[in-house]
Amino acid sequence: MMARPKPLSGFPEFLPAGRIVEQRALDILRETFELHGFGNIETRAVETMETLTRKGEITKEVYVVRRLHADPDERAGANDDLGLHFDLTVPFARYVLENAGHLAFPFRRYQIQKVWRGERPQEGRYREFLQADIDIVGQDTLASHFDVEAPLVMLQALERMHVELGLPEARMHVNNRKLAEGFYRGLGITETLEVLQRVDKFDKIGGEAVAELLVDELGLSAEVAAKCVALAGICTPDDSFVEQVRALGVEHEMLDEGLEALRAVVNAANKRVPGRIVADMKIARGLDYYTGTVYETELVGHEKLGSISSGGRYDSLASDGKVTFPGVGISLGVTRLLGPMITKGRITANRSVPSAVLVAVDAEETREVAEDVAAALRSRGICCEVAPKADKFGKQIKHADRRGIPFVWFGGMHGQVKDIRSGDQADADARSWTPPAEDLRPSVTTGD
Amino acid sequence: MMARPKPLSGFPEFLPAGRIVEQRALDILRETFELHGFGNIETRAVETMETLTRKGEITKEVYVVRRLHADPDERAGANDDLGLHFDLTVPFARYVLENAGHLAFPFRRYQIQKVWRGERPQEGRYREFLQADIDIVGQDTLASHFDVEAPLVMLQALERMHVELGLPEARMHVNNRKLAEGFYRGLGITETLEVLQRVDKFDKIGGEAVAELLVDELGLSAEVAAKCVALAGICTPDDSFVEQVRALGVEHEMLDEGLEALRAVVNAANKRVPGRIVADMKIARGLDYYTGTVYETELVGHEKLGSISSGGRYDSLASDGKVTFPGVGISLGVTRLLGPMITKGRITANRSVPSAVLVAVDAEETREVAEDVAAALRSRGICCEVAPKADKFGKQIKHADRRGIPFVWFGGMHGQVKDIRSGDQADADARSWTPPAEDLRPSVTTGD
Repeated sequence: MMARPKPLSGFPEFLPAGRIVEQRALDILRETFELHGFGNIETRAVETMETLTRKGEITKEVYVVRRLHADPDERAGANDDLGLHFDLTVPFARYVLENAGHLAFPFRRYQIQKVWRGERPQEGRYREFLQADIDIVGQDTLASHFDVEAPLVMLQALERMHVELGLPEARMHVNNRKLAEGFYRGLGITETLEVLQRVDKFDKIGGEAVAELLVDELGLSAEVAAKCVALAGICTPDDSFVEQVRALGVEHEMLDEGLEALRAVVNAANKRVPGRIVADMKIARGLDYYTGTVYETELVGHEKLGSISSGGRYDSLASDGKVTFPGVGISLGVTRLLGPMITKGRITANRSVPSAVLVAVDAEETREVAEDVAAALRSRGICCEVAPKADKFGKQIKHADRRGIPFVWFGGMHGQVKDIRSGDQADADARSWTPPAEDLRPSVTTGD
Repeated sequence: MMARPKPLSGFPEFLPAGRIVEQRALDILRETFELHGFGNIETRAVETMETLTRKGEITKEVYVVRRLHADPDERAGANDDLGLHFDLTVPFARYVLENAGHLAFPFRRYQIQKVWRGERPQEGRYREFLQADIDIVGQDTLASHFDVEAPLVMLQALERMHVELGLPEARMHVNNRKLAEGFYRGLGITETLEVLQRVDKFDKIGGEAVAELLVDELGLSAEVAAKCVALAGICTPDDSFVEQVRALGVEHEMLDEGLEALRAVVNAANKRVPGRIVADMKIARGLDYYTGTVYETELVGHEKLGSISSGGRYDSLASDGKVTFPGVGISLGVTRLLGPMITKGRITANRSVPSAVLVAVDAEETREVAEDVAAALRSRGICCEVAPKADKFGKQIKHADRRGIPFVWFGGMHGQVKDIRSGDQADADARSWTPPAEDLRPSVTTGD
């Protein structure tokens, strides 16, 4: 016996209809990733603290995991402690190193798992959430065309979720670190990372304030700072950004490389998923370890959610000292994308159960007849359940109605089936009758 | 940079081909459960320690979870601490209580998630493993026919895994607590639970030793003890157990009830999944809180694995003091079932990637032609990938071969497709060509 428990802040859980929406989104992700040749892996939920804290900065958000009654000798060193993974990139890098001898490179994988962050509890911050990552990892080298492919795969998945689930349109903002770095170098700047970190504040503080920071903190001339800000202000839905950058009159080999790489991404995206990408020169992804293309994605009309899908190219996902594994990847925050809309009921399923049919029971003595009908329907892929009790038919119909089950079956194998929405009832044979395709599975619906 | 990491004992991870096997098994489970009208839920990985330790006994196997830099006020009481769930029943009971007002009862749910147990590391013990549970939960009451349905659904899933994935046959042993308890009461025994706990050792120590325990420890007469042991020795693949029990000459109303309930399960199972069930009077599931039917399942030829799927009826899954929620459920140890066979390579996939086709690239300048071919194939549900590099064709074929990809596409939309297993090559149009159905997805294969 326990009192009614309360939800734990930051650990979202859905009711069955909400979970149907999430499952449908996960099916779309899996299908899209597999159509593009990505294989699935799952990694354990825990990593050693040594692995988790290698990058240093994120240490305080880790959840530490310990056996309640650990033996003293198990507590020997802090590095033996385990923590829950806070993303899927760190575990994947470890997995690649651990299994490199058994993997075929370039290795394309997708991974859809929960991650945990020990955030301070506050509105909209999740402590447990679902991520979906794709990465392509090479051994020593990785061709640049993968920078084009990775965001396209994610955009196609997001487009299907827009069309099939009614999620808002995605808009992916793409840039290339080489473009910015080449541009800065062409201007004679050597502290390119420092410039990038300040340009990263463009959206928050505006171009003028960024220019001031560049002058005050980095000692750039007003003219050079203005050029940096002008670059950051370029944002085009097609490859016209190339001309606009050229018009700023800066020359550098690395800039050329970056421009061409970004042009390839934008043109390919506009061919495969028109209207969903912008080349955006102010995207920097500040402190992250990207070295080429970088991506951020917002939902049109829901920009306040922040980036729901980000990633980029990193020259060294992992290295064992002898071999380096460069990669390009993009991560989707599934819970960030779906959580608020499911929780607020703005996206839901038209029924809370998979069943398309409730098989009514005449009397408890003939329950087996109903079970035979159900078995015949199931053998042809029709989800159904048998009424829990031989109640009056009106009560059995109510049972179906309450769950959104569209059809009720009466009688035996040669019986009658009633569409409880229209009230239509007709003779039917359980060995051949099939509900309309749109009723076979629950549908995802949107609305307020 | 990091040295090559070593696996963590008890936290199994699969290579991509192994994960394909696991995914296929999970697809079968999901399909089977949904065909029977079970809806999916996921609960958070953590529960409060208060929830986890309510049953008391399992406390020491819990993994405690704490923020690395938790604020002092967060540490106020041990009951606010969180632990990873060690099964899916405790979280489900909490979920039912928390959401009772939003659920329709009887509520049928399945749940497939990782669970964690802080076991001492040793061979064959998992610290993280996947479980698949189905439960049907009522409000105040739950009809007895659900005791028949729950094990049947799991048996059907296991049978599909046997037929489609080559897993060993399952054999489910079923008993009913009322049958044993009624029998003991009919013999005038009042300490029925104590008898049950000793009978539970039948498999380990044998009937004679059990009889001795009953006489020595519980003071039963040799004759009564012999009857208890005779009951435990009854094990039939059909409902002939009823006669055998009757022949022992014990009468009790509860015994009758138990016999009929068990007969219903065995007959229904033999009708839907012939030859996979036995009525086994020595199944007791010792200390667990079951009150009616109980199930245990072994794999034929792999009995040493222990029970891979167990469950039963409990009169009170949860209670908030006013309302009681009786349930019946069965849990499958997915990792226990698949882990050893996948790890030893006795069951694997015929390719390590989803791709059925590798689209070859003539030259980097014409990569887009290959991308067009791939897009045309994908639009018809054919998984494919484009060659990573415009290498010599022999090298591109090798790339496919290494991953088990059966087909390589050459040329543009009107191109040629080669089956690299037979060497056959033929003209093909990317808008209409389809691989044979058996090559569309990776196949699961068994063998040594």
